[in-house]
Amino acid sequence: MAPATAATGDLGGEIVRRIDALGAISETPDHLTRVFLSPEHRAAADLLLSWMRDAGMAAHLDAIGNVCGRYEGERPGLPCLMLGSHYDTVRDAGKWDGPLGVITAICCVADLHRCGKRLPFAVEVTGFADEEGVRFASTLLGSRAIAGSLDESVLGARDSAGLSMREALTNFGLDPADIKAAARDRSELLAYVELHIEQGPVLEGLHLPVGIVTAIAGATRLAASLTGMAGHAGTVPMLLRRDALAGAAECIVEIEEFCRTDQHGLVGTVGYIDARPGATNVIPGQVSFSIDIRAPTDAHRKLAVADIVRRIETIAKRRRLVLKLDVTHENRTVPCAPWLRNQISEAVAAEGFRAFELPSGAGHDGMAMIDVADVAMLFVRCRAGVSHHPDEHVDPADADVGARVLLRLIENFRPLNEK
Amino acid sequence: MAPATAATGDLGGEIVRRIDALGAISETPDHLTRVFLSPEHRAAADLLLSWMRDAGMAAHLDAIGNVCGRYEGERPGLPCLMLGSHYDTVRDAGKWDGPLGVITAICCVADLHRCGKRLPFAVEVTGFADEEGVRFASTLLGSRAIAGSLDESVLGARDSAGLSMREALTNFGLDPADIKAAARDRSELLAYVELHIEQGPVLEGLHLPVGIVTAIAGATRLAASLTGMAGHAGTVPMLLRRDALAGAAECIVEIEEFCRTDQHGLVGTVGYIDARPGATNVIPGQVSFSIDIRAPTDAHRKLAVADIVRRIETIAKRRRLVLKLDVTHENRTVPCAPWLRNQISEAVAAEGFRAFELPSGAGHDGMAMIDVADVAMLFVRCRAGVSHHPDEHVDPADADVGARVLLRLIENFRPLNEK
Repeated sequence: MAPATAATGDLGGEIVRRIDALGAISETPDHLTRVFLSPEHRAAADLLLSWMRDAGMAAHLDAIGNVCGRYEGERPGLPCLMLGSHYDTVRDAGKWDGPLGVITAICCVADLHRCGKRLPFAVEVTGFADEEGVRFASTLLGSRAIAGSLDESVLGARDSAGLSMREALTNFGLDPADIKAAARDRSELLAYVELHIEQGPVLEGLHLPVGIVTAIAGATRLAASLTGMAGHAGTVPMLLRRDALAGAAECIVEIEEFCRTDQHGLVGTVGYIDARPGATNVIPGQVSFSIDIRAPTDAHRKLAVADIVRRIETIAKRRRLVLKLDVTHENRTVPCAPWLRNQISEAVAAEGFRAFELPSGAGHDGMAMIDVADVAMLFVRCRAGVSHHPDEHVDPADADVGARVLLRLIENFRPLNEK
Repeated sequence: MAPATAATGDLGGEIVRRIDALGAISETPDHLTRVFLSPEHRAAADLLLSWMRDAGMAAHLDAIGNVCGRYEGERPGLPCLMLGSHYDTVRDAGKWDGPLGVITAICCVADLHRCGKRLPFAVEVTGFADEEGVRFASTLLGSRAIAGSLDESVLGARDSAGLSMREALTNFGLDPADIKAAARDRSELLAYVELHIEQGPVLEGLHLPVGIVTAIAGATRLAASLTGMAGHAGTVPMLLRRDALAGAAECIVEIEEFCRTDQHGLVGTVGYIDARPGATNVIPGQVSFSIDIRAPTDAHRKLAVADIVRRIETIAKRRRLVLKLDVTHENRTVPCAPWLRNQISEAVAAEGFRAFELPSGAGHDGMAMIDVADVAMLFVRCRAGVSHHPDEHVDPADADVGARVLLRLIENFRPLNEK
């Protein structure tokens, strides 16, 4: 019982052309930057809306600046399979992170439209206006508005120029009072499926163009500070030292070793460190560093964090260092729905590839969409795992595989209650 | 055969009064700073010269701004025992580092003068104009001028305001062409003995007011850089990482452990570290850090540096990190002359204290004076080992012990050829 075949053209080539066109819309010509409610946001929205309409969709900008396209099913008003991703960027970004998911979804619908194919459900494509959170330091604004979970206090947040989000929305021509209207009801959505670049090196290492996401890993971030005793690098014997940097170094090695020997996808990173006073010939008396812990399940992450905290406490105590540890950020794990994962796996296999599953260590709009629909994600290989960087790159052939898998998924999609 | 008794008054009290008076001469009233060729240098020199003259010395400012006092022996023109230290400071300094040695020496001579005592050698007291090197980033300027080892190219060095040392000397009323005249001949000096605060916690830990220095430890400083691969803290599995900070942390732990288990006074310090890009959620791709290694003998230090470099290379190789290591600074060890150490030990014992020997991990003017005389040092305990900080403190009773030991040494001094 082979699923229906899909793609009628070179989807990869079309996707790359559109990625380039969208990637040219930037705050500065040499460094791709496209932030929420900027003139570039407007230009990118206009382009996406035109592509949506060309693909046979009814399309509009919603109250928070998301682009929303709808391709009706066999009859108007059916619940939809929602596809999407975001179209804002970080500063000095690559052009694939976010846009690949929006553009691929539009191209898939365009293919349905070309064939005059209607399905027993509607297909919607959403381009979220802000996922990265660059301008107002608050992420997932677009998807939280659609999920109805946007905390309105965020409207008071100000950008670096002092403009509030409320003012920026108004200047953009949107009415902050309408944001509630952007929210969708669970009954309208059969599922939310997002295609996105992996942003990691796993698929490349396995020579696979695509992978199926098991869960968007939760994350715990801690700010650690160790205080010892500064001193002259020449005059304090080793045994009398309370060297805060040597203590931090032991913690970093311990965190790495603890995560490295874990068998369940745990990752731990110390990305930031600051040693004071920071002079070549002075023993550091105070060190601050960050700890980022992620795991595919909340239970595993919480156990790991507790274990790591205990180990750091032991190191600090033995070294007579004063430890301060604060949780600065915590995100629950968002599991991808098994019934959706199964259907994506079938589509991957039908395209002739191994249906490989992996967790997403990065955050995605599904973290907000889970409040209003079951979610799933398809990852597309990116070169060397590089992301959030101008070197971010996807092979056109991989973009094509991603699109073919997505199109196959759409054409063969069975809502949960029909399984 | 007990050595002659010494001190006729409360030398400690007099020393503390003079430390306070000299410590009041500062660039800013709240943070003691007194740099080379500044108005504060002039005011401090005038005060020291007046104290020298009050103590029965002929005193003058030499061609580089050192204060030079001479107390003749039994007949004029005899070779001298030179005592001294520096009277410049670091920024936001304590008031004891340097001045204690100059002031104690003056007080000792004042005591001789009070008693009308003349010795079979002259006693000279030198206050070196610049040891810390704050203004022109070149240390030991005063003692190198006296040792005849000042490289004249240093006259072209510029301070942060762009003024050259040559110009600063001229503005101060000195003639750069005269600097050679500041140099002393080995035949004029029987020895150079410096009293200085320990700047470390060893004497305090042993409840000893003074200690005899075995050597001024040489130092090797290296700049290390490790380059791995930056990546997303969530998306790169532990086993695929090339985390430059985790690598640096392993090096820091290794350096500490290597030095900690050494039995011969080796100390190693990583005082500076910088991890890039330095974001909480990004695996560091590049880390720079400093390494400072000191030991009481050059041979031991060189072996230790070679061993540490090998260990760091091994860590970098195993972690697939690119290592760059540069020696940025190297100072030979300056041994204190055993015949002088013996005489200081006798004086310490005669004052009723254990003659404890320890290396100096910090640099001192003896590093330059070794070129023109045998050198020795007497350390005085300082509170908690704190130095180069406003909290730097010496107990008046300890200052008194230091002065009594120094006076005893002077009165019983036997030049090398008379041993």
